Amino acid sequence: MINSLDQLGEKEILNRLKKFMAIGQIDDDTAQVNPLGKDILINTDVLVEDVHFSKETTSAEDIGWRAITTNLSDLASSGVDQILGITVGMITPPKTEWSWVEGVYTGIKTALDKFGGQLIGGDCSSGKQKVLAITAIGTVGCIRLHRSHALDGDFLVTTGPHGLSRLGLALLLSDQSIKKKQLSEHLKTQAINAHQRPNPPLEALRALERCKPKGLPWRAAGTDSSDGLLEAVENLCESSNCEAILDLKRLPRAQSWPLGTHWDNWCMNGGEDFELVLSLPPTWANALLKTFPSCQQIGYMRSGPAQVTWDNGKAIQKSNLLKFKHF
Amino acid sequence: MINSLDQLGEKEILNRLKKFMAIGQIDDDTAQVNPLGKDILINTDVLVEDVHFSKETTSAEDIGWRAITTNLSDLASSGVDQILGITVGMITPPKTEWSWVEGVYTGIKTALDKFGGQLIGGDCSSGKQKVLAITAIGTVGCIRLHRSHALDGDFLVTTGPHGLSRLGLALLLSDQSIKKKQLSEHLKTQAINAHQRPNPPLEALRALERCKPKGLPWRAAGTDSSDGLLEAVENLCESSNCEAILDLKRLPRAQSWPLGTHWDNWCMNGGEDFELVLSLPPTWANALLKTFPSCQQIGYMRSGPAQVTWDNGKAIQKSNLLKFKHF
Repeated sequence: MINSLDQLGEKEILNRLKKFMAIGQIDDDTAQVNPLGKDILINTDVLVEDVHFSKETTSAEDIGWRAITTNLSDLASSGVDQILGITVGMITPPKTEWSWVEGVYTGIKTALDKFGGQLIGGDCSSGKQKVLAITAIGTVGCIRLHRSHALDGDFLVTTGPHGLSRLGLALLLSDQSIKKKQLSEHLKTQAINAHQRPNPPLEALRALERCKPKGLPWRAAGTDSSDGLLEAVENLCESSNCEAILDLKRLPRAQSWPLGTHWDNWCMNGGEDFELVLSLPPTWANALLKTFPSCQQIGYMRSGPAQVTWDNGKAIQKSNLLKFKHF
Repeated sequence: MINSLDQLGEKEILNRLKKFMAIGQIDDDTAQVNPLGKDILINTDVLVEDVHFSKETTSAEDIGWRAITTNLSDLASSGVDQILGITVGMITPPKTEWSWVEGVYTGIKTALDKFGGQLIGGDCSSGKQKVLAITAIGTVGCIRLHRSHALDGDFLVTTGPHGLSRLGLALLLSDQSIKKKQLSEHLKTQAINAHQRPNPPLEALRALERCKPKGLPWRAAGTDSSDGLLEAVENLCESSNCEAILDLKRLPRAQSWPLGTHWDNWCMNGGEDFELVLSLPPTWANALLKTFPSCQQIGYMRSGPAQVTWDNGKAIQKSNLLKFKHF
């Protein structure tokens, strides 16, 4: 039985991928989409085996799902309206089994069916290591979020708890550092799910749009926490040239999340949480906190140097923190 | 002196890449472009070291240039009007020198300055092998070329000579098969240039648009010859369900291109020639042949099985041909 990609050949691989593609886009050199007269948002992410995912912790379907979440999360944090389409560049070693490729595309398709958008094109090649390069495009919605739009007096809000994905990874790897820790079954399930099947913050974005108080302009700063919550806040500070004051008592911890430096670090720097991190006027922030239950205020913005400080005045000790890095 | 990417770190890498990016697009999670109310074309290509390029034959700048050409060639063969922007996903081993990355982006920028479009975003990561994943988007022009639009009676036309890039590669590798062959200096220079600095067929597309006879509808079939001339014609046949008859005497050879099976094979299957391969009404084809000197009619289309046949009735012996493959 023929199972590996080098046995199948490029033509047969492309033929088998057709069932995942939007009709009409499988036969040409390019895909065509209609942005309905609107500006478009575009985002490209690369995911590399043993850097962004490993077969120990992530099935092929989960990899496909997470690739879409990563990408749509970036679009959401810029204020996307409709997801128009996704292209997938896939690189695999020649001996890769077809079942792995099919799994990834099944995950992609399942995520797109849930979050919107179609698979409209792509490219494939052999290579030494598995790689996914995903580009998503969508139309601009009613608020265009920028990192640089934070202002003095804004509340800092995030749309959900942080650290869950990092805990999920630790659980899947049977990490020694958590072996002795008593964790609730609910937290464990939630954490593994957050790692394997994270959702892009599209519902949170819709809530943000719906709850804007009348009279306020469509101005808010935003990014996502895919590289960690602290990194997200730092990016807002740097782009907006503002100082962020974080409230130590208001770290966005999940229910029954343990206390302690180790757990605070995972909350702040775990990465891959895919929540919105927003800087917006207090009235709008309060409206969002009321309407979207998982939202939490984590601090506020003020004029000052582009840095993040605890509300007790202490500087954040970066050297103690686990930064989320790809180099 | 710090030179390798793992010494620089991700933040410094991104900082250094800013000079290559369009203003205003460097600071957010996504890029935004305005398609001026038009539909858009989108294309993704992956280029992998030792599959699509090797350091023996291609400098970093040439890799960047060729990546753009590959991509814009696909957009051209679908009928692009304005190139809106390019995103670049780059994967490199951690020990890669910064000078290599800078070289690739310099090549990308030089090509975009020549052909249109801006670098608007991307992503980078470490990995075992160098990879470029390029996505280009552009607006749809006055003719939307499809592979499936060929009709019985069309002329088959290509916009330039074929095999040059393959010869250029052989020259750069000091390939034994051509060692004893006397080749003109002009042909050698042209071939190496075609391999290292190929142009996407945007001028040919503009000529095609300009010379359409009045009264004819905007209907033509098209693709590019990036995977070889024969593969391009086969793709038109399969998508349009037509038979292509190729004229043996009219192979699109460059000036002073040698005769013989080996050279015919390179012309037909060399790959990476980045010319348009068009199927269009005879009057439009003749107008194009007059207005665009490097154009050549290579055959015609007729009702029949989806296959390519020589005009003497002989089937094309595929087993003798070098197919251009990535698996």
